[in-house]
Amino acid sequence: MDNDARINGDRLLADLADLARIGATPEGGVHRPALSEADLEARRWFRARAEEAGLSAQQDGIGNISVTLPHPSSEARTVMVGSHLDSVINGGRYDGALGVIAALEVLRTIREADHQPLCCHLEAISFADEEGRWGSFMGSRALAGRLTIDDFEHSRGGKEALLAEMQAAGLTVDGALASRRDPATIKAWVEPHIEQGSQLEEAGLPIGIVTGIVGIAAYWLTFKGRADHGGTTPLDRRADALRGVAEFVRQARELVLNRFPGGVTNCGIVEVSPGVFNIVPERARLALEFRHPDQQLLEAMREALLNLALHVVEIEGLGLEVEQVGMEAPATMDREIIDAINAACQVLGLRHRHLASYAGHDTQVMAGITQAGMFFVPSVGGTSHNPHELTRDDDCINAANVLLHTVLKLASEP
Amino acid sequence: MDNDARINGDRLLADLADLARIGATPEGGVHRPALSEADLEARRWFRARAEEAGLSAQQDGIGNISVTLPHPSSEARTVMVGSHLDSVINGGRYDGALGVIAALEVLRTIREADHQPLCCHLEAISFADEEGRWGSFMGSRALAGRLTIDDFEHSRGGKEALLAEMQAAGLTVDGALASRRDPATIKAWVEPHIEQGSQLEEAGLPIGIVTGIVGIAAYWLTFKGRADHGGTTPLDRRADALRGVAEFVRQARELVLNRFPGGVTNCGIVEVSPGVFNIVPERARLALEFRHPDQQLLEAMREALLNLALHVVEIEGLGLEVEQVGMEAPATMDREIIDAINAACQVLGLRHRHLASYAGHDTQVMAGITQAGMFFVPSVGGTSHNPHELTRDDDCINAANVLLHTVLKLASEP
Repeated sequence: MDNDARINGDRLLADLADLARIGATPEGGVHRPALSEADLEARRWFRARAEEAGLSAQQDGIGNISVTLPHPSSEARTVMVGSHLDSVINGGRYDGALGVIAALEVLRTIREADHQPLCCHLEAISFADEEGRWGSFMGSRALAGRLTIDDFEHSRGGKEALLAEMQAAGLTVDGALASRRDPATIKAWVEPHIEQGSQLEEAGLPIGIVTGIVGIAAYWLTFKGRADHGGTTPLDRRADALRGVAEFVRQARELVLNRFPGGVTNCGIVEVSPGVFNIVPERARLALEFRHPDQQLLEAMREALLNLALHVVEIEGLGLEVEQVGMEAPATMDREIIDAINAACQVLGLRHRHLASYAGHDTQVMAGITQAGMFFVPSVGGTSHNPHELTRDDDCINAANVLLHTVLKLASEP
Repeated sequence: MDNDARINGDRLLADLADLARIGATPEGGVHRPALSEADLEARRWFRARAEEAGLSAQQDGIGNISVTLPHPSSEARTVMVGSHLDSVINGGRYDGALGVIAALEVLRTIREADHQPLCCHLEAISFADEEGRWGSFMGSRALAGRLTIDDFEHSRGGKEALLAEMQAAGLTVDGALASRRDPATIKAWVEPHIEQGSQLEEAGLPIGIVTGIVGIAAYWLTFKGRADHGGTTPLDRRADALRGVAEFVRQARELVLNRFPGGVTNCGIVEVSPGVFNIVPERARLALEFRHPDQQLLEAMREALLNLALHVVEIEGLGLEVEQVGMEAPATMDREIIDAINAACQVLGLRHRHLASYAGHDTQVMAGITQAGMFFVPSVGGTSHNPHELTRDDDCINAANVLLHTVLKLASEP
């Protein structure tokens, strides 16, 4: 197989359209939350499509579906590619799905081609629950050996509901915990994905090679004031907790824009108590999240934002409580994988740029156990997690062709 | 009776202490929500104390308790004085109670004294539910003929609960609706009250004569943005509804401080949706309240604050929904009553100032049907609606003496 190798674009697009019927929503998106009937149907569909193409498929204990094209030598390592079939509530048809279909198409293409023998097993995988209905990256963390009984006891979606839905899907906690794979058997991981942003579209570029996935920190900041009468207390005598939130929300944005150009922040929830019209807010609890692809800068952002909160409460005469509720380290993509994707773009004559991913992906989990990389194709308008999510046909075909040549390169050595 | 007339301070203070035992809380306050067992006990105590002093007492259909010292002529009009015996949840022992005890003490003093005959009936009244457990100023509005069946159907505290508690207290809706009094029979209304602020304490003045009670406007302002991904959407591409709230909260305070020195505002509730850490707020609903003692300036504040909200959403690229949820007009105190209170202060040698009330009182309802006035004595630290509420003994005695001389003046003419 040479530089002229190409996937079958028509077959890829037909599969994408076929898969989009499963859990289809009236607005044109899909609704396939992990373990929902639509999600299970998508898993069955994926296995069936692989088997029709002469590939074998199996499910592990957490519900990851692997389609394999084995190398004759059992000593060979595996080049894994893929993404996920589940969606957020009322999501779009490309997020995750494109990566899984492209991975399947790559294995089909290589199986059919009259190619020089590769040196690795190939595996197209769909990870379970990437969107975190039940927990953060349940499928890839199971494979990486990072799942514990706690993930089931304290599932986001509720333990009882999770166990019931797993049982209905023929899965068990013991089986899920036994889904770990030996990292020594895995050579590399590559994930194609839609951008979920508009950098590529605006630059007019078909491919974005991810250099790092953001680290994400999440905090509850509680601003504490005094619950005075909202009528009789003069404005300049109040300790108004909501003023602390207002100043922080405003200044946090300026701080990140001015001092951390590679970072983003979001304040997504405010809870005010006592929470009545005529009492000055005594407590205001703010959900703060911030992201940066660089670990040191993420740490510097953390310090700057918490210092800002301290500064605000000092100026406003308030108290502050800080509670960390999440911290995922940034993941740096592997140099060899980035080079392989670069080379694939060269072969295909596709212009590209390097960029960071500001959304989390299974790739950040896989980066903990193997050489990992990922690349993006454009999302129209940057839209994602939305029924109007759209990636154009040519871009979908590009995704699969870039993956094809990346895999050919990575699998050409043991 | 002459300028030397004084109430009996020891008796007044003993009554205050006695009343404070009813519904007493461990922190030193009282808990007497309207129609609670403690509230009903306080009503019984008030009637009993009046009858011990040879005064007659009766309850009307809403539960207002009137203690009367009648004039021989049935043609005479009534000078009414008093306040309320109910408290907020976990409230203090002076708010309302001082006005009722002072009114009782004034009637006792006048009855005992060897005075020239007055020209009016005198009545010391305790209004039901001033604090609004069941509805806004239920007792005084019943007396003013402003209560409707709606006040029971849509009671703040719930219709079923209200009807059950009224029944337990021997009250009926029909009786409540029949509590209207003919305004032509009422000559004047005067209410003594604790300040619930610290203007008097800071100025070192024993008496504040109220010139007006604030009007209160309440709105829900809904700032509308776009629910983007909180990681992948660049900060300068967001339509973040919470930024609208943050800017408004900050600027509304500045606007009122700078342009409406007699006004106050409070933002007491924020509700963000979808309300998750990693999604840019699509909607943020803010509870806005503002008060001003002058109707024209209240109207100007309304316009300025709503214009500010429009300005903020324009700058931030957001939408706005405005919903008015309340509007009580300011009440201007009657010139003749203000003069009578002034004269009483002169007689007693008590320095005083004029001020506005930023809290609502039954007096604003009474101002709709008769000449009405009110005055304040200091609250230590401005504290109220709180178990630590405190008005010093001398100030309590001053309240009753000022009320005595105000009543003597007002009742000296028919």
